[in-house]
Amino acid sequence: MYGTKSAIRALHSNARQFSTTARLPASSGLKINSERLWNTLHETCEWGAAHRYGENPTDTGMARLTLNDDDARVRRWFAAEVQTLGCSLSVDQMGNMFAQQPGRLKSSAPMIAMGSHFDTQPRGGRYDGILGMMAALEVLRTMKESGFQTNYNVGVVNWTNEEGARFPKSMCASGVWAGAIPIQQAWDLRDIHDPNVTLRSELERHGYLGDIACSSNPETGYPLGAHFELHIEQGPILPGNGRSIGVVRGAQGYRWLTLTVHGKDAHTGTTPFSARQDPLLASSRMIAASHDIAKKHDALASTGIIRVPSNASTNTVSSQVTFTLDIRHPQDSVVHAVQDECLKAFEAIALQDGKGVSFDWTLDTDSPAVKFDDNCVASIQAAADYLVGRDQSMLMTSGAGHDTVYTSKHCPSAMIFVPCRDGVSHHPTEYCSPQDCALGTQALLEAVVHYDQFRAEAEGQK
Amino acid sequence: MYGTKSAIRALHSNARQFSTTARLPASSGLKINSERLWNTLHETCEWGAAHRYGENPTDTGMARLTLNDDDARVRRWFAAEVQTLGCSLSVDQMGNMFAQQPGRLKSSAPMIAMGSHFDTQPRGGRYDGILGMMAALEVLRTMKESGFQTNYNVGVVNWTNEEGARFPKSMCASGVWAGAIPIQQAWDLRDIHDPNVTLRSELERHGYLGDIACSSNPETGYPLGAHFELHIEQGPILPGNGRSIGVVRGAQGYRWLTLTVHGKDAHTGTTPFSARQDPLLASSRMIAASHDIAKKHDALASTGIIRVPSNASTNTVSSQVTFTLDIRHPQDSVVHAVQDECLKAFEAIALQDGKGVSFDWTLDTDSPAVKFDDNCVASIQAAADYLVGRDQSMLMTSGAGHDTVYTSKHCPSAMIFVPCRDGVSHHPTEYCSPQDCALGTQALLEAVVHYDQFRAEAEGQK
Repeated sequence: MYGTKSAIRALHSNARQFSTTARLPASSGLKINSERLWNTLHETCEWGAAHRYGENPTDTGMARLTLNDDDARVRRWFAAEVQTLGCSLSVDQMGNMFAQQPGRLKSSAPMIAMGSHFDTQPRGGRYDGILGMMAALEVLRTMKESGFQTNYNVGVVNWTNEEGARFPKSMCASGVWAGAIPIQQAWDLRDIHDPNVTLRSELERHGYLGDIACSSNPETGYPLGAHFELHIEQGPILPGNGRSIGVVRGAQGYRWLTLTVHGKDAHTGTTPFSARQDPLLASSRMIAASHDIAKKHDALASTGIIRVPSNASTNTVSSQVTFTLDIRHPQDSVVHAVQDECLKAFEAIALQDGKGVSFDWTLDTDSPAVKFDDNCVASIQAAADYLVGRDQSMLMTSGAGHDTVYTSKHCPSAMIFVPCRDGVSHHPTEYCSPQDCALGTQALLEAVVHYDQFRAEAEGQK
Repeated sequence: MYGTKSAIRALHSNARQFSTTARLPASSGLKINSERLWNTLHETCEWGAAHRYGENPTDTGMARLTLNDDDARVRRWFAAEVQTLGCSLSVDQMGNMFAQQPGRLKSSAPMIAMGSHFDTQPRGGRYDGILGMMAALEVLRTMKESGFQTNYNVGVVNWTNEEGARFPKSMCASGVWAGAIPIQQAWDLRDIHDPNVTLRSELERHGYLGDIACSSNPETGYPLGAHFELHIEQGPILPGNGRSIGVVRGAQGYRWLTLTVHGKDAHTGTTPFSARQDPLLASSRMIAASHDIAKKHDALASTGIIRVPSNASTNTVSSQVTFTLDIRHPQDSVVHAVQDECLKAFEAIALQDGKGVSFDWTLDTDSPAVKFDDNCVASIQAAADYLVGRDQSMLMTSGAGHDTVYTSKHCPSAMIFVPCRDGVSHHPTEYCSPQDCALGTQALLEAVVHYDQFRAEAEGQK
């Protein structure tokens, strides 16, 4: 049922190239139950359903914010479900939930995890994070009902507060697990609507402040042997290219800047252009320039926020304008080049009109590009080749951040993308078809089994 | 002391050209008291002084909002002052104050008025409006102390709520007087900070709800024979050209538009440029384009306000952007041409990036250009020629709105501008030097006397 040992070895040794010689089948012989997957997903979306947009029962979005009552309900349901399947369940000090099913080898090596998140945006949909959790559970259910055992322990992780919507830090608990965010800082995060409520106080209220350290340290925490995540693409690239599976080999780098442009307030009726220091005109030219520069580099540059002072008026040139700049590219060198070129262009723009403006900027976030593990990627590619063929899958770089970006710092990790309608996510109408949900879940299963086999091979070679 | 009758006739018959033959002296033989002017101005600024910025006693701005207690104090002081000078005082139903001093001819024709306003912006200065009032009073004082009598009645008008800062409609009471604003609408204006307080309730509280109709109708209201207003320029043109007197022959036309650009919210990390509908990028290009188009026409186009939805975030392409556009030029045809060209350019920009955006717009204000009275302008030009010579004055068009724009609909009107430091107004540091205050006041006196003489000539010709 598996590819031969030599075939697996060849695939993984070729991981960086994905050459045609790597086109070798990966088949577990198992088949996930797509109806069960679909029904379970939508049944559990009753906890947090919101923002109805159509007449079908599932035509709603979700508002299951981290550690609200609905998030606690789905956590309790999940805990019961995985225990029914025979899993052990551990909860760490950030409320991350680790369900583990023993492998055939009875190895003490860390499990191969399938992870994602149950929390949503306040006006989110039914698939972002949720599909990854439900697919992971469906993989365990499929294995259980067929009596299938992996070599190594496998399991599922629910990462707390991936969205960062209620407690404003995204990929928060995987960040703590990876040592990138101090736990006290994460615990102290306040509900954006109620400063009396902290992430820690909500963990305590629901009984999800576990006693295991939130860490990959095997002495104190919960290390992982690998991490696979199925996620909707949240973009238009898969559907735009007619592909059904994205083999995600990394995440693009990004830098977030805030620019503040200083001018001088002046009456729009009495101040000639030549006498103005107009920060909104300059900002407009800067935003357009940043787009054109990024386009030239095949990168992205986006402004999401622009603010003028609250006393701005139609007939007053603003004194100051603030805007954000989000620069992205799979290569850090390109992110830096775009930033440098933008700042140089901004300096020229600042001198361009009237008496000129000045500006300063801060670097708010610097997230270097991440390269996922070649072997994990190879297993996903093998699964995709087997399920849909090379023409129906594509190698991709994630544009958004995911928990897998943090897990990749401490264990081999990679992701699977499936298409979502019109690339829409973080919106009630976010949609992934039953077929794509099932295909992604089957791919997750095949990739995990393939990687488990590869791992056994690799260990056996020692 | 006056120019000869034929000289005055020649000047006014040449009003439209201001030819060199019109360079004829206008001299009343009177001299205003610049020290008294300066001291009175700053003494009365004790009512409303705010926003100290320097160590000198007068280094503050003003916060004398319409019909607050300080505005009521300066009104009571002004009423007492003009009555001491022998003026009759009338108050209309908008609290406009008309002080009148009888002329030599004992004519029942409406008086020649010098008008402006005592109210200021919340962070205003000591000269905008106030200088015009103090200059008018100083003219009456100078005439009184020298026993000088004009032919016709002359006087001073204090127009209520010119700034529209507390009760949000600017040039409010002159607008009612001119029939452009219904009095009930003006009365119903609410204090922007306290909706329980209306303009009418404050008129009543301070005893300034007069019984004369607020109208130019001679049957019911208070018609004027002419209206002259001295004002700081509020712009950099006079100092930029080294001129000390602006002979203001009209006010530019302006149109205020609000543009709403509709796109689609999308993740900045996962959405390629080609798939975006980015309203902030489009708005930025539109703002830059409107500037460039206006510049080409020697017009003004300005954006003071831009808004993204309150849930905007750094990593989300905004769904919608709203911005204002303020287009101005002394000729209405140019205002219209700039608007048309902007909207055409915006249509092209809407298609330019990604999947394009849509936009709609509203016309919020349409204020056609105003041409002041040729004879009033000629009298001011004659005053300027006499006082500083043609090289030190310049013909101007007012960029801002003033009460004189409304009076000009119902009586011959024109304005005198004097420089203010760096063109700054509506700011605590607004400043007009003692010399410029005095020069403007002397020009006001000469213009009024010159116009009074011309009027007598013109009447005598009938």
